[in-house]
Formats: sequence, structure tokens, C-alpha cells
Amino acid sequence: MGCVQSFRELCDRPKNTNVRLSLPLVCFVWQTAMIILFGVFIRYNEESDVHWREYMRDKNITSDIENDFYFRYPSFQDVHVMVFVGFGFLMTFLKRYSFGAVGFNFLIAAFGLQWALLMQGWFGSLDYTDGKIKIGMENLINADFCVAGCLIAYGAVLGKVSPVQLLVLTLFGITLYAVEEYIILSIIHARDAGGSMVIHTFGAYYGLAISWMLYRPNLDQSSRNQGSVYHSDVFAMIGTLFLWMFWPSFNSALTDHGDGQHRAVINTYLSLASTVLTSVAISSIFQKDGKLDMVHIQNATLAGGVAVGTAAEFMLMPYGSLIVGFLCGIISTLGYIYLTPFMEKYLKIQDTCGVHNLHAMPGVIGGIVGAITAAAATESVYGKEGLKNTFDFEGDFKDVTPNVQGATRRQRSVWPSASASVGGFSWGVS
Amino acid sequence: MGCVQSFRELCDRPKNTNVRLSLPLVCFVWQTAMIILFGVFIRYNEESDVHWREYMRDKNITSDIENDFYFRYPSFQDVHVMVFVGFGFLMTFLKRYSFGAVGFNFLIAAFGLQWALLMQGWFGSLDYTDGKIKIGMENLINADFCVAGCLIAYGAVLGKVSPVQLLVLTLFGITLYAVEEYIILSIIHARDAGGSMVIHTFGAYYGLAISWMLYRPNLDQSSRNQGSVYHSDVFAMIGTLFLWMFWPSFNSALTDHGDGQHRAVINTYLSLASTVLTSVAISSIFQKDGKLDMVHIQNATLAGGVAVGTAAEFMLMPYGSLIVGFLCGIISTLGYIYLTPFMEKYLKIQDTCGVHNLHAMPGVIGGIVGAITAAAATESVYGKEGLKNTFDFEGDFKDVTPNVQGATRRQRSVWPSASASVGGFSWGVS
Amino acid sequence: MGCVQSFRELCDRPKNTNVRLSLPLVCFVWQTAMIILFGVFIRYNEESDVHWREYMRDKNITSDIENDFYFRYPSFQDVHVMVFVGFGFLMTFLKRYSFGAVGFNFLIAAFGLQWALLMQGWFGSLDYTDGKIKIGMENLINADFCVAGCLIAYGAVLGKVSPVQLLVLTLFGITLYAVEEYIILSIIHARDAGGSMVIHTFGAYYGLAISWMLYRPNLDQSSRNQGSVYHSDVFAMIGTLFLWMFWPSFNSALTDHGDGQHRAVINTYLSLASTVLTSVAISSIFQKDGKLDMVHIQNATLAGGVAVGTAAEFMLMPYGSLIVGFLCGIISTLGYIYLTPFMEKYLKIQDTCGVHNLHAMPGVIGGIVGAITAAAATESVYGKEGLKNTFDFEGDFKDVTPNVQGATRRQRSVWPSASASVGGFSWGVS
Repeated sequence: MGCVQSFRELCDRPKNTNVRLSLPLVCFVWQTAMIILFGVFIRYNEESDVHWREYMRDKNITSDIENDFYFRYPSFQDVHVMVFVGFGFLMTFLKRYSFGAVGFNFLIAAFGLQWALLMQGWFGSLDYTDGKIKIGMENLINADFCVAGCLIAYGAVLGKVSPVQLLVLTLFGITLYAVEEYIILSIIHARDAGGSMVIHTFGAYYGLAISWMLYRPNLDQSSRNQGSVYHSDVFAMIGTLFLWMFWPSFNSALTDHGDGQHRAVINTYLSLASTVLTSVAISSIFQKDGKLDMVHIQNATLAGGVAVGTAAEFMLMPYGSLIVGFLCGIISTLGYIYLTPFMEKYLKIQDTCGVHNLHAMPGVIGGIVGAITAAAATESVYGKEGLKNTFDFEGDFKDVTPNVQGATRRQRSVWPSASASVGGFSWGVS
Repeated sequence: MGCVQSFRELCDRPKNTNVRLSLPLVCFVWQTAMIILFGVFIRYNEESDVHWREYMRDKNITSDIENDFYFRYPSFQDVHVMVFVGFGFLMTFLKRYSFGAVGFNFLIAAFGLQWALLMQGWFGSLDYTDGKIKIGMENLINADFCVAGCLIAYGAVLGKVSPVQLLVLTLFGITLYAVEEYIILSIIHARDAGGSMVIHTFGAYYGLAISWMLYRPNLDQSSRNQGSVYHSDVFAMIGTLFLWMFWPSFNSALTDHGDGQHRAVINTYLSLASTVLTSVAISSIFQKDGKLDMVHIQNATLAGGVAVGTAAEFMLMPYGSLIVGFLCGIISTLGYIYLTPFMEKYLKIQDTCGVHNLHAMPGVIGGIVGAITAAAATESVYGKEGLKNTFDFEGDFKDVTPNVQGATRRQRSVWPSASASVGGFSWGVS
Repeated sequence: MGCVQSFRELCDRPKNTNVRLSLPLVCFVWQTAMIILFGVFIRYNEESDVHWREYMRDKNITSDIENDFYFRYPSFQDVHVMVFVGFGFLMTFLKRYSFGAVGFNFLIAAFGLQWALLMQGWFGSLDYTDGKIKIGMENLINADFCVAGCLIAYGAVLGKVSPVQLLVLTLFGITLYAVEEYIILSIIHARDAGGSMVIHTFGAYYGLAISWMLYRPNLDQSSRNQGSVYHSDVFAMIGTLFLWMFWPSFNSALTDHGDGQHRAVINTYLSLASTVLTSVAISSIFQKDGKLDMVHIQNATLAGGVAVGTAAEFMLMPYGSLIVGFLCGIISTLGYIYLTPFMEKYLKIQDTCGVHNLHAMPGVIGGIVGAITAAAATESVYGKEGLKNTFDFEGDFKDVTPNVQGATRRQRSVWPSASASVGGFSWGVS
């Protein structure tokens, strides 16, 4: 099973000196580097700094409850659970690899979120007055998002890489993520609330590229089907369910305060429900030798959350969300049945967790859905002000309450002068 | 073990063509129907719609934080976890049925919440100006509540029904739920914050009625006691604990803003704590051949949450909550010891998960407790305004702040002109 | 394995009459006592009482969202999960003891939180006007904190005590906790947001003292290393991850509204991330016979959360949090490698879960870090008002908004006239 058990090896068998020394070395050196870089660059922002109450008076904010913390913390904790329990346990289905999947996931996520705070800070929220990165709740959420992208990539190479290799992949992954995020959100001026493009599509193709480089014909693909894996499949369902349940928080964590977060939750909730039924349907039609593949239940049921990500904050309408979920459940399950074996046989790409079916394809669909929804956005539906707030077109906010402005201003710091994906951009220029 | 392994069969053995075609057919047709009905009927409500900020100005709401989303979203996510992880894993105790229980639970809940949004919308929150159902956070919570009722019913027939049969039971269950909810809350004018009557009593008796119809003498009741089920019992504890921990959110999710939600949490928290001790006590007294039945620890410890549901938002007083939990722990555990075997032997009703002990009896007790608490409600305890707000008696709110009115108005849309259960009604007419 | 399986015995083998009668007796008598004491002493506070809306008008509070419930409930639920799932599953690593660990944890926590509400109420929030303890969200959180202290102690004696013994240890533990909390916070005037000293150091040494008294040479320490424990190790990771993810809520649950909670979350989040890397590094350096000890991954990775507890609400700075986590990951892991065997061999103290490494040492470090941070607090960093709010020095608040005062006043009721740990005290007198 190749390195499928590399973590188990660390636990069970004498290791070669190389790994035995390189892992602690990398951990120590990199963590020390983080401390130095944080010391030079990272400070609290105005809402987490002790001067918050002076800031409140300056901005005529009358209550502590207006602190962004209370708008976003519950979503943040849900996203945190998705990253560490969701992704971790989703990868426990491989035989005798449960502990390794969870343990590695834990290690690279813990490093990744520190590096993400720095990389995203330099590109996004650097304060040019003093050259410091000011962090608050939104930065922690963005860091978790960035880590999620790398964990998706990990899903493609699961069982083929050592701990040290994983840490290196994470280092480069986070860096690339910060760059592509900057390009898509700040240069192309796209909006991508749930990260269909920025997180899922990127993460999947990054992982598949590495998997293609690491192709190893002897990797035992059948390992997941062996009987003794039964309890591992129940563990994997823990991951699936926490991802499924908390996905509405993922897609709404960074949307506009008020109706933006409210609508993103409704759209994601409905899209995910619809996906479950079509995934089960396709899976039971294509039962290979009478088996309903547990991998479909564990993965394809999540595709709707990925695909509704970009458009989650738009007026997609409840039925629109159901349609998105309906299609993605079908496409994703068919991907597991036809595409994954095809990719391994003819493209020499092994996709251990099938991230191409769960993240890449639904992510691309999500981008297209977002573009269409944005292009179709009319003033009759959104209202003049709604268009401004949703797609952050420039304009006067004189008749908007301070708090609304606050919300919008905060948004900007995350999605600098963003309009709506491709279609939205046409709006921006028209 | 009869159909106990019907899901396992889907996974392990060649299936008969019937199920193999009927399951995907039902999933596709029903999901398509959902899309059409949502397209015709379901829209965003004023708080999830992009016009929210205009609505804010109309209502003199000064901050996005007043959006109902921020009052209810944390509770909603907890309820969501109870429905998908709580109920799902609670039913994993059956030998070699863990995956089936979780998987089926996932499938029927995903369909049920869509159908619930429609049924409850038609009965509850239909906007007669344009014939649309306007949904927001409260509707999603209500949909999860409705699904919970059907999952309770599923607990009674666990292992005796196929996936398709389950979906049909859910379709009818949701429909009946919407009707009985309308009767109890809108016609009898009862209040039932935690759904002791509306959710638990209904769900349990609906399930038991079906179980009675599906009676199969050869069902292997001993399956749960076999040694190899040990890990399944630990999985079941995951379900138990998430239900137990998040029950305060369940009972407070739809109560009045402010003290209503605050008080409901305290009452539920205390009632559940008290139940644990009396359940363990009774269980260890009645150790059959020296065994402390794990089923008691997994189920009876939750009875207090059910029984405190109706009265959770009233001035039940902390000691009152402890008393309710104390009694239900005893009654529920005794039910598992005496009543369940009696029902199977003499009434030909098989109650796989013992929902009669966990939901039916405590639910009835909850209704009675609610009635007594409401009947005992005096102006000296509640104050004139308190009586109005808690039991929604008509009256002028001129001296109440806009937000308080907002909270109350919102409540109405959920519990139309509700007064307090049976006892509360006598108040309404006196 | 001695009493390691005492819960399993309850489940599997005929019990001696003593336990068989004493357990139900203790449960019934103690729960009855709780009901009587709650009836005499415990009432709702002004925010959970039905008169809240009159209170709002008296205090010029304009919205229900100002109810402390909405500032603290999400954190409370996370703490609740840490206590029941986190601590419970963290102790499932012992072979064939999974269910016992979770079940006992459940039982003593359910009793402990009731007794804690009374003990902490008498010492902390007793209303001298009517001799009642008025409870709200903060009291529930404090009760969970208090229970956490006793569960830490349970970790030291895991497998050596019967259910009844555990209940007795909890009764005394809660009592001692309330006393030492009163001394540290009210007499020494220390602040301890995350309870590094009050919760973790106390809990660990209380447990180790009992373990020393119960020393039994024949206890099979190797049990945890046997192969068949593999799934138990994955269960234990569920506990580890929920503790790790929700620790920011633990440290921020009772800090000041606004920037206080915001900053505590950031500091804890960063400290925990840093700990993971150094724990893995040390663990892989000291691989005994080529094994990376899963116990290190399950426990030492949490040390950073303990150590940052006291200083979490101070201006520790992001890099300061990383340094604290860096050091504690090293110290805690070395403790598991050298100190635990040493303590058992020479001091006759068996530390089943290694609470000395995870709670005692990091707790002491946390106190020192808090003292240094407080001593180093300058007006240039905190501002005049910041010093007042953070360390609760006396002074006029005339230019502070009502809500800020509300937040501070509430704080007082929990940490009566607290200044900053040892160093902070020097500030108080200077």
C-alpha cells in the first residue's frame, strides 16, 4: 500500500533516520520562523485591540455587540470544525489509515493557518501606515479557508506522501493560494463568498497536479474496499456529516452582515439537501455487482455545498439552489463511477479521495453559476442599493446607516473593490 | 435480523430489481417535484432578502445585528447537529447496522426538510398578498424540528423498513406533522417551545403505529446485546452526547428573543443534568444478570430534555426543572425495563429504539408540566407585560421598545396567536 | 487491569451488592438534595427572568441582543462540548474502557455542574438582598469550568476508582474548587480568564494527590499499548480535536465583551497551532523503538491552550501566543517521555492520562505568563481606559458608553474587583 501507512509506520515500525530527523527539524525551524515573522508583521486589528472602546466612540458605535466578533464567531467555529474534524475524518476510510489521516490533517492545518495569516495578510490586509498586518476574526476565517484548499489537495495524494513532504506541499500550497486569491478577487474583481473557484477548484487541481507527478502504479486502490474497513467507514461519516451540516457557515462566514449571511445560509442549506437525493439515486442505479458504494454517500453528497459557494450570497432563489444541488449530485457521483478510474488508467492521475469529483468539477460549476446569477442581476430584483451592496459597486452611501457602512467597509478589506465574478464584472463596466 | 441490514444489503449483496429501480426513481421524481414547488411557492423573507436594508430603515432598525439571523443561527446549527449526527449515531447501536442507520437518517432528513418547508409554509407562513411562502432562519429551524419528529418515528421501525418505505413514511409523516402542529398551535392555541407534544409525542406514536402494522415475530431483538457491538455502543454515545449537549438549543431555538431564549436554556440544562443521575440509579438497581444496560445510558438520560420542552420558556424555576428531569429519568428507564418487552409480547408492537420511553411518555409529561406551569402563571410572578409577552395575550405594546415588538411580532408568525397550552388557554379566556 | 474496567464490570459481570446498592442510593439522595437546595437558593437573574424587558427600560437598553445570552451562548455551547465530548472521548484510549470513560465522565459532570452552581453561587453571586443565588449564562459557563477541573482530576485516577468513589471525589473537588477560586480571584485579586491556575493547575494536583493515595502497583500500565486499541485511539482523537478546536471559546467565554473576547480567541488559536508542531517534533525525536506515541498527539498538542489561559485577554501579542505554545508543546511532550514514568517509579504517583504534563505544568506556566504580561502592561500599550477595563482598576467611567459599563459590571459579578494576577496586583497597589 505504498506510503498509505506512512503515519502507521511512524507508529509501528523502525523508521529510516532521514524521516526521523527531518520531521522534527522542519517543525522546529518553520515554527521558529513563524514566531519571528509574526513578531515583525502581525498585530491586533481595531476590533481585537484594547483600544476598541475608543474606536467605538470615534465611529459612534454604541454597543460591544457591534464588534465583528459577534457577527462571525459562530460561523468561524463551524468552519474550524470542518477543517479539523470534517476533512480529517472524511479521509479515515482507507484501511488501517484512520489515525494517520486525522493526525496528518491536524499537523498540516496547524502549520498552514499560521503561514496563511502571513501570506494573505501581505496580499490583503497590510496596513501601509505602519507596515503591519492587522488581524481579527475575518483573518482567522480566511486562514481556515486557505488551509481548506490545501487539505483538499491532500485528499488527492492521500497515502502517497510522508509527513515532511506534506508540510512542503502545504507551504507551497498556501503561497499559491494567496496569489491566485489576489488575482481572482482583486485583479479580476470577482466575488467568491464560498470559494467555489478560489478554494475548491484551486485546491483540487493543485492536488491532482502533485498526484500526477507522484504517480505510483503499485498503489493499492482496492484497500478501501476491504471488509475490515467497516468501522473506518462509520468514522468517515463523522467527517461527511460535520462538513455537510456546517457548510452553510462556510459559505456565509465572510458574506455581508445581515441579509448577506442570512441568504447564504439558506441557499447552501437547500443545495446540500438536494444533492443528497440525486447522489443516492445515481449511486443505486450504478451499483457495481450490487453494491451501493459508501464512497458516494461520503463524498458526492457534499458537492452541492461547493457548487453554491460563489452564488450563495446572491439572489439565487431557493429553487435555484435546489437545481444547483440536483445537478452536482449527479455529476459528482458519475465522476466517481467513470472519471476517477479513467483518470488513473489513461492520465496516470491517482485521485485517492476523488477530489476532482467533489471539488474540481462542482467548483467550476459554482463559478459559472455565480457568473450567470450576477449577470442576470437586475435593479428590479436587487434595487439600486442592493446592487451596490451585493456587488460593491462604487456609489454614495449617504442614506445608509453607519453600521451598514461598517459592514461594507469591513467587506472591502477582504474582497477589495470586488464586483460579481465574470458576469458581475460586465456589470461593473457597463 | 430481517431488514435490519437492508442498507448493508444495498452495500454487500446483489439487490432485487425492485428496490434497485424504485429507490433512484423515487429520489429523482420527488426531488424534481421539490424544485417545481419551490419555484412556485418559496421566496426569501424580509430578513434574508436583499431589500433588508430598506426594511431596516422602514422599521427604524439601526444595526444588522438586529437581523433574526444573529438571534437564532447558533441554535439552528446545534439543532442541525442533533438531527444529522445526534439522531443518526444514536441509532448505530444495532450490530453491523451502524452505517445503515447513519446513511438512512441522512437520506430521509435531507428530503424531509425540503417537504417540511413547503407543508409548514402553507399552514404557517404563507403570505396572502402574493401567495408565496417567505422563508428565513425560523423556517429552517421549524423544518429541522419537523424532520426530528419523523426521525423519532424511524427509531421505532429501525431495521424493519427499506429505503423507499422510509421515504414514503417521511412524506406522510411530515404532512401529518404540519397538520397536527397547525391544530395544536393555531386552533387549540397551545404553546410548545421545545415541541414536547408537537414533535416528540407525535413522532413516537406515529412510529409505533407503523411498527404495529409491520410487526414481524422473527425480528432478532437480541442483536443489540451481542459482544461484537462494543464499538457501535461507543458510536451511539456520540449521538447521545450531541443530543444531550445541544438540547438547550433545541428548546430555546424558537422562543422569544432575550429572556425567553435565556430561560429556556437554563431550564433544559438543569432538567437534563437531573435526568442523568436518576437514569443511572434505576438502571443499576435493576441490573438484569448484573448488567448495567448501555441502552439506558444512551437513551433515558435524554428524557429530561423532552419533558421540559413545553415549559422551557415559562417561569418553571430552576428547582422545577430539576424535578421534571428527576421524574423522567425514573419513568423512562422503567419503561425500557418493563414496558418495551410488554408492548412487544402482548401488544405486538416492536419498539427498536424504545421511542415510547424516550419520546412518547416524557412528551406527554411535558405537555402536562406546561399546562400546570401556565395555569399557575400569576401576574405577581410574570408581571402584566410578562404575561402578555410569554403567553402572547392581546394588548397594547405602546410602552415596549420597537425591538421587543419585533421579536414578539416574529414569534406570532411562528405560533399564530398562541396562548399557553391547556392551562394557558384558560388564562386566555378568563 | 484493576478497576480499569469497573464500568465494564457493571456491564458484564455480577456486581457485589455493595456497589449495586450504593450507586443508586448516592444518585437518589444527592439529586434530591440538589432539588431542595435549588428550591431554597437558586433563582433566575435579571437577564433570564421574565422581567428582563422592564430591566431593559430601567437601564436604557434598546435591544434584546444586548442580553448577555447573545454575547456568551455560542462560547457556552463550545465549552459544553469540551466537557462532555472532549474530556469524555480523550479518555477512551484505554483498551476496552472506551464506554466506561465516556459514561463515567457523563455521570460525574451531570452531578458536578449542579453542585458547582450552588458552591460558586454562595461564594460568588449570592444576592444579599434576598439571600438567593441569581443564575444566568455566566453561571452556567462557570459551572462547566468547575466541572472541567474535576474531570482533569478524573484523568489522573482513570481506571482506579468505582462510580461511587468518583462521585465522592467530585463532591469534594467542586467544593475545594469554589474555595480556591474565591481565594485566587477575590482575595489575591488575580485575573484568570482561561483558568490556567484556577482550573488546570488545581484539577491536576487534586487528581494527582488522590492517585498517590490510591497507588496500586499491579495496575497494568501497558494496556494502552495493545494493538486492539487502534479504534480507541481514533475515538480519543475525537476528544482531542474537539478540545483543540473549541479551546478559544473556553478562554474567551468569560472575558470582557468586545475586544476582550475577540483578543482571547486570537491568542488561544495561535498558541494551540504552535503547540502542535513542537509536540510532533519532540515526539518524533524521541521515538521509542521507532514509535511515534499516539498519546503525545492526543494530549501534548493541547498544552498551548492551557498555558495561554490566564493571559488570553491581555495584550499578549500574536507572536507572544506563538512563543507560549512553542514552549509548552516541548515541555508537555518531554513530561510524557520522562516525568510520568519517573513519578510512577519513584514518587508512587500513577498519572493515567498524564494530567501533570497537560494541565499542571502548562497551568503553572500560564500563571507566570499572565503575571509577566500584566506586570509589563503599560499605559502606552493599553491606554488609560484600557488598563482600567482590562485589569478592572477602580476609576470613573463617565465617558464610557452604558453598554461598556454593563459589560464591566457583569464581569465584576464573576471576578469580584479583580486586577491582574500577581504582576497585575503590583499594578493595583502602585
